[in-house]
Amino acid sequence: MGDFQVRTDLALEAKESYEADDVRIRGVRVKEEKDEEKEIYTTTVVIETENGARAMGKPAGTYITLEAPNMSAPDEGYHREISEELAHHLRELMKGVCPPDGSVLVVGLGNREVTPDALGPDVVNNLNITRHMIRVYGRISDELRTSGEVSAIVPGVMAQTGMETVEIIRGVVEETQPDVVIVIDALAARSTKRLNRTIQITDTGINPGSGVGNHRNAINQEELGVPVIAVGVPTVVDAATIVNDTLEELIVQMDRSDRMQQLGGTLGTLDHAEKHQMIRELISPHLNTMFVTPKDIDETVKYLSYTISEGLNIAFSGKER
Amino acid sequence: MGDFQVRTDLALEAKESYEADDVRIRGVRVKEEKDEEKEIYTTTVVIETENGARAMGKPAGTYITLEAPNMSAPDEGYHREISEELAHHLRELMKGVCPPDGSVLVVGLGNREVTPDALGPDVVNNLNITRHMIRVYGRISDELRTSGEVSAIVPGVMAQTGMETVEIIRGVVEETQPDVVIVIDALAARSTKRLNRTIQITDTGINPGSGVGNHRNAINQEELGVPVIAVGVPTVVDAATIVNDTLEELIVQMDRSDRMQQLGGTLGTLDHAEKHQMIRELISPHLNTMFVTPKDIDETVKYLSYTISEGLNIAFSGKER
Amino acid sequence: MGDFQVRTDLALEAKESYEADDVRIRGVRVKEEKDEEKEIYTTTVVIETENGARAMGKPAGTYITLEAPNMSAPDEGYHREISEELAHHLRELMKGVCPPDGSVLVVGLGNREVTPDALGPDVVNNLNITRHMIRVYGRISDELRTSGEVSAIVPGVMAQTGMETVEIIRGVVEETQPDVVIVIDALAARSTKRLNRTIQITDTGINPGSGVGNHRNAINQEELGVPVIAVGVPTVVDAATIVNDTLEELIVQMDRSDRMQQLGGTLGTLDHAEKHQMIRELISPHLNTMFVTPKDIDETVKYLSYTISEGLNIAFSGKER
Amino acid sequence: MGDFQVRTDLALEAKESYEADDVRIRGVRVKEEKDEEKEIYTTTVVIETENGARAMGKPAGTYITLEAPNMSAPDEGYHREISEELAHHLRELMKGVCPPDGSVLVVGLGNREVTPDALGPDVVNNLNITRHMIRVYGRISDELRTSGEVSAIVPGVMAQTGMETVEIIRGVVEETQPDVVIVIDALAARSTKRLNRTIQITDTGINPGSGVGNHRNAINQEELGVPVIAVGVPTVVDAATIVNDTLEELIVQMDRSDRMQQLGGTLGTLDHAEKHQMIRELISPHLNTMFVTPKDIDETVKYLSYTISEGLNIAFSGKER
Repeated sequence: MGDFQVRTDLALEAKESYEADDVRIRGVRVKEEKDEEKEIYTTTVVIETENGARAMGKPAGTYITLEAPNMSAPDEGYHREISEELAHHLRELMKGVCPPDGSVLVVGLGNREVTPDALGPDVVNNLNITRHMIRVYGRISDELRTSGEVSAIVPGVMAQTGMETVEIIRGVVEETQPDVVIVIDALAARSTKRLNRTIQITDTGINPGSGVGNHRNAINQEELGVPVIAVGVPTVVDAATIVNDTLEELIVQMDRSDRMQQLGGTLGTLDHAEKHQMIRELISPHLNTMFVTPKDIDETVKYLSYTISEGLNIAFSGKER
Repeated sequence: MGDFQVRTDLALEAKESYEADDVRIRGVRVKEEKDEEKEIYTTTVVIETENGARAMGKPAGTYITLEAPNMSAPDEGYHREISEELAHHLRELMKGVCPPDGSVLVVGLGNREVTPDALGPDVVNNLNITRHMIRVYGRISDELRTSGEVSAIVPGVMAQTGMETVEIIRGVVEETQPDVVIVIDALAARSTKRLNRTIQITDTGINPGSGVGNHRNAINQEELGVPVIAVGVPTVVDAATIVNDTLEELIVQMDRSDRMQQLGGTLGTLDHAEKHQMIRELISPHLNTMFVTPKDIDETVKYLSYTISEGLNIAFSGKER
Repeated sequence: MGDFQVRTDLALEAKESYEADDVRIRGVRVKEEKDEEKEIYTTTVVIETENGARAMGKPAGTYITLEAPNMSAPDEGYHREISEELAHHLRELMKGVCPPDGSVLVVGLGNREVTPDALGPDVVNNLNITRHMIRVYGRISDELRTSGEVSAIVPGVMAQTGMETVEIIRGVVEETQPDVVIVIDALAARSTKRLNRTIQITDTGINPGSGVGNHRNAINQEELGVPVIAVGVPTVVDAATIVNDTLEELIVQMDRSDRMQQLGGTLGTLDHAEKHQMIRELISPHLNTMFVTPKDIDETVKYLSYTISEGLNIAFSGKER
Repeated sequence: MGDFQVRTDLALEAKESYEADDVRIRGVRVKEEKDEEKEIYTTTVVIETENGARAMGKPAGTYITLEAPNMSAPDEGYHREISEELAHHLRELMKGVCPPDGSVLVVGLGNREVTPDALGPDVVNNLNITRHMIRVYGRISDELRTSGEVSAIVPGVMAQTGMETVEIIRGVVEETQPDVVIVIDALAARSTKRLNRTIQITDTGINPGSGVGNHRNAINQEELGVPVIAVGVPTVVDAATIVNDTLEELIVQMDRSDRMQQLGGTLGTLDHAEKHQMIRELISPHLNTMFVTPKDIDETVKYLSYTISEGLNIAFSGKER
């Protein structure tokens, strides 16, 4: 697609862009499930081969996407059904990697001063932190008896720290030797339709080109030496992406609409490369430093971060529910 | 322009959109000044008649715009030259309305939980509040001797309070009877180029259709019974506006570019209304609840709010500088 | 007790200081209840006469105190049993004053920048605000059908606003005409033993000499023209009070202990006034601007504010539970 | 003094408690300077020997204390004279340890959710962070040409992270290899008189028994492998310490005052150990988890953190001033 990078952190969207072209990708396995009652739609994308990874632009591994239309709406129980679904998938991914009472380091990525990027820090705020209590007092209470050893850090972003986020995390991992690292991050989606209603859980960690901000180096098993599970929610769309998509839509419309037929015919004489050259020229370079987010993003991040931290708390409690 | 509303809170941009059409508006007077040394560009738009007001889509009054390319860049002195320029214009607008030691109520509009909308609350955070000290202890210090009686409030937004912001302010004004109200607000610009480098000062207050959020009722002399000066900085652009502008640019390009000539010709057969109908259809309704803002908006709002609160502090100090 | 003012905002503690002296006060009725299962202890003090009011140093009215030893401990359900108990008492006090679907203005008193004083602002953060939705859209959802019209404001403290808090509230009340005002405030207790485990609910509002900070004017029906219910939790003790109490304890000990007998005898030759003169001289005037609070006050205020806002949400939902 | 630990993080106060006893300590050198014009009082305590260290209860090294009565008062220039004094001492301590353009890791200790403990995190908020820019773009601007490579982290406290703060810092130091670590912390003073008007700078780092919160393990060269300079301001006094000191004062008064003579004589028959046994019994164990701080601590921490971060910014700018 030339040098304009349409950015999406969602494997689901990467897959869809291929499906639009009616292509089935070898080395990629997809499973869809609907829980009509709970209104949760689960898509599991497993990238099994290097070929699949290349095609998807994402490393091999498992990508689970929970979609729920009302995820960020106010709810008396803070969407416990979603927290439980998230906990279920986390436990599945942690199997063989970390025992129920093993040690987990949760990393809240992102910038707590920028509302849509504060998801990670906010999730950490509501976690049950247990490592220090277990180490100092032992597993003295009912809750601590079965619990994982949970620690957490909010490393900040590069403009605040002067360091790559992965440098900070690697240092903390080497010192404290957790069995697994779980990173929480705000993601960039390709489409506004998916904002704030989708949770992606993956055992591949965070990989370059993902996320909102400038914590962009890979945060994965290769870098940290321990397995890394990433939990993300798309809270922004790149401004350039929105404009790009509208222009692409324009080209599609031109081919279809009655009145546009004549025009479309003409535009059709431009080849694919020429069309995208045109789009690139129209997109202001300013837009590459901008993002799009909903006006009620404060409420949304508040609810979502609570739902996710409850999911983590359930997953680490060591109790089957 | 049909029912898609391109929103700008800047009189400067409203004026420009006319100039683009080579129209001079009767009842609107414009003065431009450049301070090359300080790199501050000042545009004063005075809407003098009802005709001018209708044409501009803004109430009659004075609109001063300070533009400075480096306004939100880090600066050791926090851009004191801009603070002083702002103070100068505030004092001019307050002349005849409020004596130097008169009483001023500053209102920090916006939502402190949404980064680009936190400008108003952040400005209030750094103000020198003096009213209670003058009332309780008298003008006992050198500073209090000449100072205005400064009070301030951060009313919050409707989703937080359940009240129109103007209801809250009206109540406080009736109780405390200030000579003048100064509201600080984050604005919506039409173009990303103007974000975070422009301050608008107006004696018309805040009028419907302005701003980022949902504090949308008029906050002006008519509503409050005392003169209202508004100080605003554009920190966001409506998402729909950005897409609209790119599409408008596409139409312009089509008329110009070599390869597009043929296309342009065809598109040219669409009349103005048809073109905008096309644009409206392409803009997702989702976009109307979205805004665009820079990724480093946290730093920007921190610097800008400091520069503005210093401007207010100087203006209310009662000292000529 | 001379001019050193031992400050308590709790009617319960005012009562106890009398009981210590084995005095029963005419015009004051006290009822105690224990719910052993829920571990909630409820004390209702009704000051019925002017005589009782004078004796207690508090205006006539009803003071309900809920005590629960684990109130600020982490709890999966955020102490829903306490929220429900609080809701029950609120509904009782609101009977005859405000119908279930009437309008309520909640005021979060205190300074959100000082941790133990942030209780009021934090409670408002978690409230279900409904007034604007009911007014704009009507009672369209199941939840809105029975709900009260809830609005809320966080007025800030005098150092931030330059205004008496009561001025701000009075203005808002006059504009929006709620049936009842409910103020939430952090209180000062006399003893550290009661901190963060006690909720006081009273239909007398806030009266001078109460609270942590400088929002000290009366906020009651007389000032606002509508009934005022105050909900408070003691989160601090005045520093001078703690020192005073230890010195008083010293005097008591001297009379009791074996080895102190001799000393006590001597000290006993000082009369009551002399003893307190001695105490006053020992208490540094610095201490009057200081407060004492627990080191984990951040966690405590987070949990407590959640429990209280849930109590308010239940009370205003209009549903019997 | 028995098992009740009067805690002070200030070497100055440790010294004074000896002087009160008219003892001169071998191995401890003290220098006092007054800058009457700037109203800054500087005391340098150098603990030179193990004997001195034992006597003072602090490790050998240099402790510089800046005292300025108006340090936390509002000031138009944010007390630039204090920032510059602080920068001067930092540069002196960094000589031989870190070249002017060397790499510095600043650590903001403490809990940003508890107002008097937020000093460290707040200082980091206002720092000029340069390491990432120098590494990515080079020393391209005038400012970067001479600047140190500044990085920073806010590790949080153990209740938030589940980790010892020193574990986190050690990990980050090992990854990023700074020449020197500078930790900023809120301290506990012994006396309220010293709160918020004293800055202590020491090349010994942070050592057990210091500080407000639970980040209590040593953070020094021995633990981190690089030199550690600590900058601290006392913002709290332990609640038990205040009560203890008042009782000690009572004993002193008894020996002095006319009317107390008789009493004092009696109390004098108690030996030192008996007196302190009496005090210990009077101090409630609750008090050990409590601290005392001024009511306007929010304003104070805001001003102080700004003054300190400016001091650091000057020190790291690489420019002589």
